[in-house]
Amino acid sequence: MKRHVFYISDRTGITAEVLGGALLSQFEDHMDFEEKTIPFVDNQEKAEAVREKIDRIARETGHRPIVFDTIVDPSIRAIVRQSSGLIMDFFHTFIGPLEKELGVTSSFRVGKHHAIDDKGQYDHRIEAVNFALNADDGKSPRYFDEAEVILVGVSRCGKTPTSLYLAMQFGIYAANYPFTPDDLEKPGLPKPLQSNKDKLFGLTIDPVRLHEIRTQRRSGSQYASLQQCQREVRMVEALYRRYGIQFLDATSKSIEEIATLVVESCNLERRLF
Amino acid sequence: MKRHVFYISDRTGITAEVLGGALLSQFEDHMDFEEKTIPFVDNQEKAEAVREKIDRIARETGHRPIVFDTIVDPSIRAIVRQSSGLIMDFFHTFIGPLEKELGVTSSFRVGKHHAIDDKGQYDHRIEAVNFALNADDGKSPRYFDEAEVILVGVSRCGKTPTSLYLAMQFGIYAANYPFTPDDLEKPGLPKPLQSNKDKLFGLTIDPVRLHEIRTQRRSGSQYASLQQCQREVRMVEALYRRYGIQFLDATSKSIEEIATLVVESCNLERRLF
Repeated sequence: MKRHVFYISDRTGITAEVLGGALLSQFEDHMDFEEKTIPFVDNQEKAEAVREKIDRIARETGHRPIVFDTIVDPSIRAIVRQSSGLIMDFFHTFIGPLEKELGVTSSFRVGKHHAIDDKGQYDHRIEAVNFALNADDGKSPRYFDEAEVILVGVSRCGKTPTSLYLAMQFGIYAANYPFTPDDLEKPGLPKPLQSNKDKLFGLTIDPVRLHEIRTQRRSGSQYASLQQCQREVRMVEALYRRYGIQFLDATSKSIEEIATLVVESCNLERRLF
Repeated sequence: MKRHVFYISDRTGITAEVLGGALLSQFEDHMDFEEKTIPFVDNQEKAEAVREKIDRIARETGHRPIVFDTIVDPSIRAIVRQSSGLIMDFFHTFIGPLEKELGVTSSFRVGKHHAIDDKGQYDHRIEAVNFALNADDGKSPRYFDEAEVILVGVSRCGKTPTSLYLAMQFGIYAANYPFTPDDLEKPGLPKPLQSNKDKLFGLTIDPVRLHEIRTQRRSGSQYASLQQCQREVRMVEALYRRYGIQFLDATSKSIEEIATLVVESCNLERRLF
């Protein structure tokens, strides 16, 4: 059974997608959803085109589409509401109680959330992303002094995407350092890390999964062999324990989950909301 | 006037933050908000600690905190609901109408949204992020053939963060190419771009803003001078027009907005929802 879903917004549609995605994930065992985002619905013509589209799919499939709508302007939203879709109207539902509680009227301004309200925040975010890029893969250890956290782990365990997510989403300066097999054989922590031991956070991963990931990259290599993956993971976990480095198992976690756990565990201060 | 806001979740809290942030942005002209995310509230003890925290702040400030809650488990959610906060309960509000419409009961499973449900999607996302990293700054033109879109523009106009966001959020393979002053002086498109002209999407930026951004990077340089920024922007916009390259002004847009507009304008297919 398949149902059509629309995410409708006067701006990017990201808020509608997050809301709808979280709700629909509770039904995915039973249903398939055909999802479509329609961003920048910011005038009456576009809203009427959306209404026609929803009505057409309702006629063709015999089921009304589910519509997650975050349009702010009440006159544009009203047009979408006239469609035959099941409208889950985010602003309409929650703005009223908030206005009452706060004792002020909402500004009904479009696209405030994912727009640039605060140039300082924007700059900080871009700087954090650039930092993560420049500090990627331990190439320039001088960044370790400036970093707020240094993600460590064996090659392909998820350090780079996590450090980029920490930068993009939270404005956190994250460096990373990949332990090579050589690093793991030697006694002691690699030299560039020694003076910033308190900033280290380790990732580990199931060796079988690591073997899969490395095989996609360099099939048949020693680097990708299950034996090598098992060996590296065993050694890196021993290293974490020896030096009291906090670590987590990234195997079945999304980037969002890993990043949030790093923020929690290291007590990092988020600069962006 | 300042109000305390909590984002409470049994998983990362990202959904609660996005939804709450969108609502509160409608009140920011009148109010300040002190925001705090409490992730991984996944058992009764943690929920009771949250309830006590909310109650304490209500007592201390004389105002009840605003609580955006995406806890899935009804028994844990119930504890938070007993607090004195104003509870904006996303699941409770919308799950009922959805269950009725779809004719099935929701699974009430925790953290399905930002968890790894689909390993294929996860792999694709990581591959897209790695692609964006490897293809960054036109260093390896061989990636242009594989890219779905090639962002072009002068140095520091926002290409790299946008290509990373396209990868992380949408799973789109985005390369980028920075036009150097030399490129802009020469007739014709830079050679590496010629065979992929249809994939180009241009960014432009207000020269005064570009001057600010470049000054943060290399203060007092010729590169950062207002005159140089004006000259490059004028030339790059002329180039876009000459070759019929679609472009947008990134000056007052967030990364989310730029990325969404690129997807729309180039009709790119999103792989992640």
